[in-house]
Amino acid sequence: MSKPYGLKYFKSYAKVIMSKSLTPRSQDYSKWYHDLIVKANLAENSAVRGCMIIKPNGFSIWEKMQAQLDKMFKATGHQNAYFPLFVPKSLFEAEEKNAEGFAKECAIVTHYRLKNNPTTKGKLMVDPESKLEEELIVRPTSEAIIWNTYKNWIQSYRDLPILLNQWSNVVRWEMRTRLFLRTSEFLWQEGHTAHASKQEALKEAQLMNEIYADFAENYMAIPVLQGTKSESEKFAGAEITYCIEALMQDGKALQAGTSHFLGQNFAKAFDVKFATKSGTLDYVWATSWGVSTRLMGALVMTHGDDQGLVLPPNLAPIQIVIIPIYKNQEELQRISELANQMVDQFSSKQYRIKYDDRKNQKPGFKFHQYELEGVPLRISLGPRDLEKNQVEISYRLTLEKELIPVDQLIPYVEKKLSSMQKEMFQKALKFQRDNTFEANSFDTFQDILNQKGGFVLAHWDGREETEKEIQAKTKASIRCIPKNQTVEKGTCILSGKPSNGRVVFARAY
Amino acid sequence: MSKPYGLKYFKSYAKVIMSKSLTPRSQDYSKWYHDLIVKANLAENSAVRGCMIIKPNGFSIWEKMQAQLDKMFKATGHQNAYFPLFVPKSLFEAEEKNAEGFAKECAIVTHYRLKNNPTTKGKLMVDPESKLEEELIVRPTSEAIIWNTYKNWIQSYRDLPILLNQWSNVVRWEMRTRLFLRTSEFLWQEGHTAHASKQEALKEAQLMNEIYADFAENYMAIPVLQGTKSESEKFAGAEITYCIEALMQDGKALQAGTSHFLGQNFAKAFDVKFATKSGTLDYVWATSWGVSTRLMGALVMTHGDDQGLVLPPNLAPIQIVIIPIYKNQEELQRISELANQMVDQFSSKQYRIKYDDRKNQKPGFKFHQYELEGVPLRISLGPRDLEKNQVEISYRLTLEKELIPVDQLIPYVEKKLSSMQKEMFQKALKFQRDNTFEANSFDTFQDILNQKGGFVLAHWDGREETEKEIQAKTKASIRCIPKNQTVEKGTCILSGKPSNGRVVFARAY
Repeated sequence: MSKPYGLKYFKSYAKVIMSKSLTPRSQDYSKWYHDLIVKANLAENSAVRGCMIIKPNGFSIWEKMQAQLDKMFKATGHQNAYFPLFVPKSLFEAEEKNAEGFAKECAIVTHYRLKNNPTTKGKLMVDPESKLEEELIVRPTSEAIIWNTYKNWIQSYRDLPILLNQWSNVVRWEMRTRLFLRTSEFLWQEGHTAHASKQEALKEAQLMNEIYADFAENYMAIPVLQGTKSESEKFAGAEITYCIEALMQDGKALQAGTSHFLGQNFAKAFDVKFATKSGTLDYVWATSWGVSTRLMGALVMTHGDDQGLVLPPNLAPIQIVIIPIYKNQEELQRISELANQMVDQFSSKQYRIKYDDRKNQKPGFKFHQYELEGVPLRISLGPRDLEKNQVEISYRLTLEKELIPVDQLIPYVEKKLSSMQKEMFQKALKFQRDNTFEANSFDTFQDILNQKGGFVLAHWDGREETEKEIQAKTKASIRCIPKNQTVEKGTCILSGKPSNGRVVFARAY
Repeated sequence: MSKPYGLKYFKSYAKVIMSKSLTPRSQDYSKWYHDLIVKANLAENSAVRGCMIIKPNGFSIWEKMQAQLDKMFKATGHQNAYFPLFVPKSLFEAEEKNAEGFAKECAIVTHYRLKNNPTTKGKLMVDPESKLEEELIVRPTSEAIIWNTYKNWIQSYRDLPILLNQWSNVVRWEMRTRLFLRTSEFLWQEGHTAHASKQEALKEAQLMNEIYADFAENYMAIPVLQGTKSESEKFAGAEITYCIEALMQDGKALQAGTSHFLGQNFAKAFDVKFATKSGTLDYVWATSWGVSTRLMGALVMTHGDDQGLVLPPNLAPIQIVIIPIYKNQEELQRISELANQMVDQFSSKQYRIKYDDRKNQKPGFKFHQYELEGVPLRISLGPRDLEKNQVEISYRLTLEKELIPVDQLIPYVEKKLSSMQKEMFQKALKFQRDNTFEANSFDTFQDILNQKGGFVLAHWDGREETEKEIQAKTKASIRCIPKNQTVEKGTCILSGKPSNGRVVFARAY
């Protein structure tokens, strides 16, 4: 590692690091996660129980995710729309399994007006006369309100398919919350499609599972397992839930996106029939699918290190930051000239670059800040660099520094950013593979979970009661029945009953 | 008008028009507006009282608006963030004027759980044991929750300014609703900024007023008046409200965007102080500003005609549509070849073009549909065109058709789309000017409002009671005190008291 700028900057750097450093992952992974999110200004808790504030640093990453997913949805024929925030109780309860699944975590609007509190000046109270005839549920998911609408839109096969998505907020009342991973309100996208055949709906749900996997692996650099959920883990109201599952650095799994084949359940609940090509009447087939701000948690926990966030270049709001190192105004001016040229050059090539010439912060502070925030490449630029026609580039993934001649900067950065995206994926993939195990006995199964965590492939007899007992004994749940599951005769690790293939267990977020 | 495709297509066209035509504006403007929105598939009412469903055709226009506004906000240093949907009652009531202004139109969450209804199987009821200790208000606007947060973010002048925006849904309970113009839930953006000086906050509020005017005029092609609101019309909790006001074709005004200088009101309500450069403590200065899906209503009502929507090219999700006219498969194939080439050519130049080769709809149906939806240019392409190497282009603004040689198509379209944007603005500007009047007596004032509507510039004595009386007598309100108001001695049209300049009155949405 070259240190061309001498002790002074590195002392200020060291000082900042000391005062602002994160709890190491090895010491307390959960505290490290929370510290990182707060210190990197991604999000924080709000005054509203269980609801978070997504700060600009966090939101700008979410915007990049949104933009890419939106592009992928549109490229596959989906359009955006917007449905109401509220679901009248009578619609909410129409699909019984769905209603049952969400009933215990609903925010419920019962009144529509406040009035002056007669006993306390300046205070307000709920006006009892504004009680609603029918309560409104703040949507925990929108199948009910949407299928009640589709009912009016669909008469014949000619009206199908309907391929809609919406970007929205939803509320699921949570008792124990964690920033991004589990909050009472969260942001997400929810796709809701209607089809004339079972086959087409199945294909749609599978397509979205592929798109989610593509997005996770190629944009977030997070390797995922694809598969289906067991009966007890699937979405309330679904026939089949397809999922992508990621593995975090502490060996716990995280469900990163689900797509549901809903069969005709919602069509039946809302009486949505269509005239088929052959002139008969049939119920419409449905899917729904979603990913949420939870992905932000997956991003942090997959790539973060003890210095902070590490952002895959494809999603980094700032890919390159330039920091000037100078003693006087004249030096700053010369540096700024070159830096601004670089900004123009890289911007014109669609790179996201920032020149941070804030005068009230020292270079050490800035170095630390951008490491914490996970900016892929940091260029420092001082008078000696100008003389030698070079820049110092620090690579966030390894924290290594290199001196690069100015005339080789563009090809260097292009190559480095593209290789970083791949390296991050490979690193995470290696971690996932190193932490995927097979267990052939319940003892081994427990040992792996207690000592290492990770994905554990094991035989299961397919019975819900076995699944529950395993979970009660080990806190591990079935994350998925893998896509392309290998047919393999075996015996269930708990019951000893026969099984035809392994499923993936893990302790999970 | 050339009609190269003979009677057949025009008969089918005429038939569609007859069966699907809109109520003419002259007959019932309000019905025309509602019909257009529903028939052009922009939006519709939902099962939830006062809440609308924004359909893909409508949402795609809103997305274009969002993208452009977001660009303008970011170009002026603003960042996006996200704050909770709910505001605890105690925070909501902290700024008294703001609370008072919104108290009567609040959706209130009082419970967080449903349970099975013991008396009716399959039905749910609010679980009385899940009553919240403190009620949550669904945000009608977010000053309260945001300033309660800024309190923790701001210690010193170094933490300022904070320049944030959020795209979100808000709820204001409405008894009488109208699609886009007045709905209980709507989508908007709300900017919330914090500053170290009054001057800086004032400048920010004015800057946003300029940005809104720029957006309205240059993207929506809607001319607007800029000005400030009277005391009684300003935002609850603001010191000054800057606004842009547009004039609809029925002579009624529409408030299209507001930006508020909030003074130190919210800083005082939430005790947000900062250490100034000179070391004293002062309350922080604030602004907030927003535009909403109401702009969709303004767009429809400014440009729509009896055939449907007319979209300014800068915001049209589809700028050019190609419709094939053919008798057999062989013809369709030849047409499609050329059409797909055109799609590639225009797409590569960033034009938004669609080739509609749906087989289950006749050309007449498609012609009608895209006229209704306001697509700026429609190209029809038949075998005779291929022979003659030409296309027929229909111009949505005037419904005129022209035959254009294929090799001149690109420059023709480029020129036409750019001139359409200007023509639409000029047409609306002419309408606004033709419908802006001066009134020097109360009789004239009433006559103008009753016979023509429009903006009426008149002297007012500056007193709230006069303003109220004028409104009671004429249903006209003060839309704004114009920016750069001409100093002119006069007497109030109602009270006869002295006035130093005219203000703008109108009946308004």
